[in-house]
Amino acid sequence: MDISKKTIDWEIEKVLTGKPKKLYDAANHISSAGGKRLRPILCLLACESLNGKTNNALKSAISLELMHTFSLIHDDIMDHDELRRNVKTVHVLYGEPTAILAGDLLFSKAFELCDPKATKILAHASVDLCEGQELDMEFEERTFVSEREYVEMIKKKTASLFEASTAMGAVLAGGSEKQVRAFSEYGQNLGMAFQIYDDLLDLLADEKKLGKPVFSDIAEGKKTLIVVRAMESLRGMERDRLAKLLHKTKKSKKETDEIFKLLKESGAIEYAKQKSRGYINNAKKSLEKIPDSKAKDELLRIADFVVEREF
Amino acid sequence: MDISKKTIDWEIEKVLTGKPKKLYDAANHISSAGGKRLRPILCLLACESLNGKTNNALKSAISLELMHTFSLIHDDIMDHDELRRNVKTVHVLYGEPTAILAGDLLFSKAFELCDPKATKILAHASVDLCEGQELDMEFEERTFVSEREYVEMIKKKTASLFEASTAMGAVLAGGSEKQVRAFSEYGQNLGMAFQIYDDLLDLLADEKKLGKPVFSDIAEGKKTLIVVRAMESLRGMERDRLAKLLHKTKKSKKETDEIFKLLKESGAIEYAKQKSRGYINNAKKSLEKIPDSKAKDELLRIADFVVEREF
Repeated sequence: MDISKKTIDWEIEKVLTGKPKKLYDAANHISSAGGKRLRPILCLLACESLNGKTNNALKSAISLELMHTFSLIHDDIMDHDELRRNVKTVHVLYGEPTAILAGDLLFSKAFELCDPKATKILAHASVDLCEGQELDMEFEERTFVSEREYVEMIKKKTASLFEASTAMGAVLAGGSEKQVRAFSEYGQNLGMAFQIYDDLLDLLADEKKLGKPVFSDIAEGKKTLIVVRAMESLRGMERDRLAKLLHKTKKSKKETDEIFKLLKESGAIEYAKQKSRGYINNAKKSLEKIPDSKAKDELLRIADFVVEREF
Repeated sequence: MDISKKTIDWEIEKVLTGKPKKLYDAANHISSAGGKRLRPILCLLACESLNGKTNNALKSAISLELMHTFSLIHDDIMDHDELRRNVKTVHVLYGEPTAILAGDLLFSKAFELCDPKATKILAHASVDLCEGQELDMEFEERTFVSEREYVEMIKKKTASLFEASTAMGAVLAGGSEKQVRAFSEYGQNLGMAFQIYDDLLDLLADEKKLGKPVFSDIAEGKKTLIVVRAMESLRGMERDRLAKLLHKTKKSKKETDEIFKLLKESGAIEYAKQKSRGYINNAKKSLEKIPDSKAKDELLRIADFVVEREF
């Protein structure tokens, strides 16, 4: 890619410097703690693949990262999460009111930066983000969620912003309708795989690399694909036992271990791995008709990375 | 105006119908409880004054109301307010997580609706909203805030969205740079007057008409113009007494009465009335070079209404 991650980091920091200082510090906190900048990179690579000028797409690419960070800050408040990227979350450090505002500021800055040609794409994704997060929260209250419902939820909550990222890059490069569609499909499939693999990481990752506690989805009663699938495939006493354990608000180490064992024995972990790889294959297939280039190669490599990463 | 308030109400309700139902109901709650729709009306009147097609500006006009409602919902969470427009606030009815999301959804919908030609105006105003609200909260922690600081705060927190409303109308009508500037100035001055008059209403209004408890600014330690001015003009023991009373987290009826007496005797209430009228005169003056029309007349009437209204 002809724009480095360092440039992206630097641009984000520049946008998030301002007054009142407390508000801007809060807004910058999560970004400055790291992050893969996956969404801006995807946008710029999509743009580059179609021979677009990435310099003209940089600000819009940054807007995607701001939108992502906004959703992390607000989600952390809603989910009462205390750690992210190995640092305390914004509401823990700055208090809830300023954390809400920091999210709102990131949101506003995103639309201030985004190219007017692409604001509809960004706005559409952010509507999806909200609807998806609401579904995610509502699912916590339910014992049974179908795989179809789960798929609809993560399409909105996660895949939509990935889709927006690559679609935006293609649009800003002046791509044809067909090309924009190809990049949209790539982004959406990549996002689906990303979320399912995230569900897996919650169970399987190294805590330090993940930057937050493992099993937090289980602790919060999140309906991950693994939980959804296990509840669909287990029968009789095992299913009842899993439902009962998942329903508990406070789970002991022993109970969490038992949940993990039940999930594993149900075959749901294996199933989720296969599903995420399936989406990755679809993502790659979407780009078949896009002419080969170094940028396209990187997009294909990112697809593999998404289901092999450790964080 | 050639578009009725009813049409505006109806358009808002249409936008705020969707799934998940709980989220959309929460987002629609404050709008459906009433509201003057002042910002959309200002936008449409500015557009009409310059012979623009108001039908083409309607969606952008609605986006201003959504942005306003978003800020009300989030501010109510931050300020722990329980009543607005005579109904319970969103976080009281739907819980904080869904209230945060409802605000985010309104924000997203605003940018989905807004004409790409005007998104920068909207985004700029929303950055200001956030910065202004942060300043407002920070001022609560301080004993002394200067009038200059107060003016900077309300310019961002309140006047900016008024300014955006009329500027947007002028831009969408294809107005010249000079014309857009005239409408921006009108909107900004109107917004300043609006906020100062709001500060006054908190002390002087009829609770039922106001739709929320009077003296809530005082209870929350808000630095209204009246408080700021009284602290600047009182001397010696009276000033110390006022500072001490304002600083208390729980204030009795007797203490609130004493605060009111001190504010009144300091001349700050009269001062704030004059200030708001001064801004209104400036607002009207800004439109002097705009050709006369029915729409312009309405804008001049609204200016007077803003400092005579009861809610």
